[in-house]
Amino acid sequence: MALAFAVLSRHGAARRGLLETPHGAVETPAFLPVASLGAVKGVAPDQLAAAGAAIMLSNLYHLAVRPGVEAIAELGGIHRFTGWRGPILTDSGGFQVFSLARIARVDADGVTFRNHVDGAAMRLTPEGVVDQQRRLGVDVAMTLDECPPWPVPRDEAAAALDRTLAWARRARADWRGSPPGLFGIVQGSVFEDLRRRAVHELVALDFAGYAIGGVSVGEPDRDRRRVVEWTAPELPDGKPRYLMGVGTPRDIVHAVAQGVDLFDCVLPSRNGRHGQLFTRRGLVRIKNARFQADGRPLEEGCACPLCATSSRAFLHHLFRCGEVTAQVLATLHNLFFYLDFMRDLREAIASGTLAETASSIEAAYAGRHGGREAS
Amino acid sequence: MALAFAVLSRHGAARRGLLETPHGAVETPAFLPVASLGAVKGVAPDQLAAAGAAIMLSNLYHLAVRPGVEAIAELGGIHRFTGWRGPILTDSGGFQVFSLARIARVDADGVTFRNHVDGAAMRLTPEGVVDQQRRLGVDVAMTLDECPPWPVPRDEAAAALDRTLAWARRARADWRGSPPGLFGIVQGSVFEDLRRRAVHELVALDFAGYAIGGVSVGEPDRDRRRVVEWTAPELPDGKPRYLMGVGTPRDIVHAVAQGVDLFDCVLPSRNGRHGQLFTRRGLVRIKNARFQADGRPLEEGCACPLCATSSRAFLHHLFRCGEVTAQVLATLHNLFFYLDFMRDLREAIASGTLAETASSIEAAYAGRHGGREAS
Repeated sequence: MALAFAVLSRHGAARRGLLETPHGAVETPAFLPVASLGAVKGVAPDQLAAAGAAIMLSNLYHLAVRPGVEAIAELGGIHRFTGWRGPILTDSGGFQVFSLARIARVDADGVTFRNHVDGAAMRLTPEGVVDQQRRLGVDVAMTLDECPPWPVPRDEAAAALDRTLAWARRARADWRGSPPGLFGIVQGSVFEDLRRRAVHELVALDFAGYAIGGVSVGEPDRDRRRVVEWTAPELPDGKPRYLMGVGTPRDIVHAVAQGVDLFDCVLPSRNGRHGQLFTRRGLVRIKNARFQADGRPLEEGCACPLCATSSRAFLHHLFRCGEVTAQVLATLHNLFFYLDFMRDLREAIASGTLAETASSIEAAYAGRHGGREAS
Repeated sequence: MALAFAVLSRHGAARRGLLETPHGAVETPAFLPVASLGAVKGVAPDQLAAAGAAIMLSNLYHLAVRPGVEAIAELGGIHRFTGWRGPILTDSGGFQVFSLARIARVDADGVTFRNHVDGAAMRLTPEGVVDQQRRLGVDVAMTLDECPPWPVPRDEAAAALDRTLAWARRARADWRGSPPGLFGIVQGSVFEDLRRRAVHELVALDFAGYAIGGVSVGEPDRDRRRVVEWTAPELPDGKPRYLMGVGTPRDIVHAVAQGVDLFDCVLPSRNGRHGQLFTRRGLVRIKNARFQADGRPLEEGCACPLCATSSRAFLHHLFRCGEVTAQVLATLHNLFFYLDFMRDLREAIASGTLAETASSIEAAYAGRHGGREAS
């Protein structure tokens, strides 16, 4: 079956929707936990489901490096391999090639590089990337894109966009409905005319959905938000919109208000591993000595294994002792937070209270470093 | 309430029993996952329950070093602190003092040492250890013991035993039913007369249960088994018997046949972290290249998150990539294995088929290095 997407209710530009895939339906706006190598770091598949995840993100680049696409295909595809039975979206790996690998050559037909693990020479092409995601058996695939760094001169951004659009045309021609969904990726850095041209040309190709890429590469919040504001409202209303690699709770609520439906980000797992915990009242830096004797749950009402059974003091203790359980519990809590937050956003759209949700999260996470300290 | 222990059925010297504690009942023979710092490494409390654990082991020495007994008491005790709501047994820390810490002085009244974390001076005394476990709020406490290394000259073993027995008398006098259970620890290294004397003197003190300590310190399997054979049958029939720090599946089945009821061991978690997986057909060294394309579950019928959803190839992949999820999934599988194995042993005692269970595990785990490779 192909993807199906329906908008169920609206509040301003924000939409509550349902994305149907061969491996189940996803209520949107939705957050995709990041499982680049097939598993969220420290999290078993059953815990991911318990946290409320409906769809998982994996990564063609990482899986092509290890264990290889053919190995996964021979093992019955990415769902059997990872044990995650729900929908899976894979990024093409364009972002990783341009951020992790040692590039040998970018040409009209693709990109040749040495991978970041063993330095082996590899090549991604627009058709190859579609075919590899097809062989993985993913629900939603991404086209190959060139993701420039930030800042980047306008002419370089334009040249990268030209390649990305040419690759998108070739990927679209190769797709023919398998994988079930193929999303085009809007690039163009922080240049409005490039972004608008990208939207225009991609929409003409009629993808199953559209991603906004090339953000979360170090640009100021203001630039990232402008990119979302330029692009999201221009994308077709009846197709899902995916903001790649974003982001903080504030970024997410801003983009939801602009009509974005899908998000992924390493923040819940990466920050969790470093002892930074998301709560409704702001970020908790649990290693701080003032949590040593704090017997309260991290977040009242949170159903994660930590909050359901134990306290800030216990998590502080586990971090202080360098126990791996600290990372596991912190990652799980942050995933529960993000997935609960997305549910709140869906309910706020349905009930017309998105402004209240937005101002509450703005207040909790104001400030340069992702939020004031929660008490 | 005090501890209650009842033998429900027997098969030879082996017993199936029920240990009742203030935090719930434990079917024996039982395995106690090791949570020295309050959590099994990499495992959330809800996962420990899902794996089938009924009772958890923690450690006074480790908790006294970090975060401190008083801190835990002020947070409402060890159950609230760790989030584990079932029974908790703590080791006194004698073993850890003599293996981890830098000893300053062993005297008639206790042991003074510098801890292994920050070198701070600390002291454990027989009465202090009972009181500290009381303040933690544990269900079962252990007396302070002196655990000699292996090998040890007979006179040193005898002197250590004298101190251990003197400390046991003082601890027993201090106990008065709180914590609910206080277990005496049989020492005496590999010397039969010392072990028998230890049993005789401890039994006269009428503890709530008896532990066999001073094993798993590097001695040959044969010596460890002889210690169990000398001591277990001499301990009071109506009290629980706990073999500390043991062990491999073969060691456990041997000791169960001698009438031992309780076990703890770091093997499932430590070996799991290093990619050594327990199965009914023997040990699987999952990092071995031959598992790269092995799409079978690690163990058919196992309900752990890995076996329920994924394959040997996936776990091999996660280890190869150095993902922390590999350690989490491997530890969970090994805990499921151990806890399933204990259930099998209980059923084998009830049905009189312990010999078959023993010979099956002997066959799977014969050999010096803990077992032949499972296919």
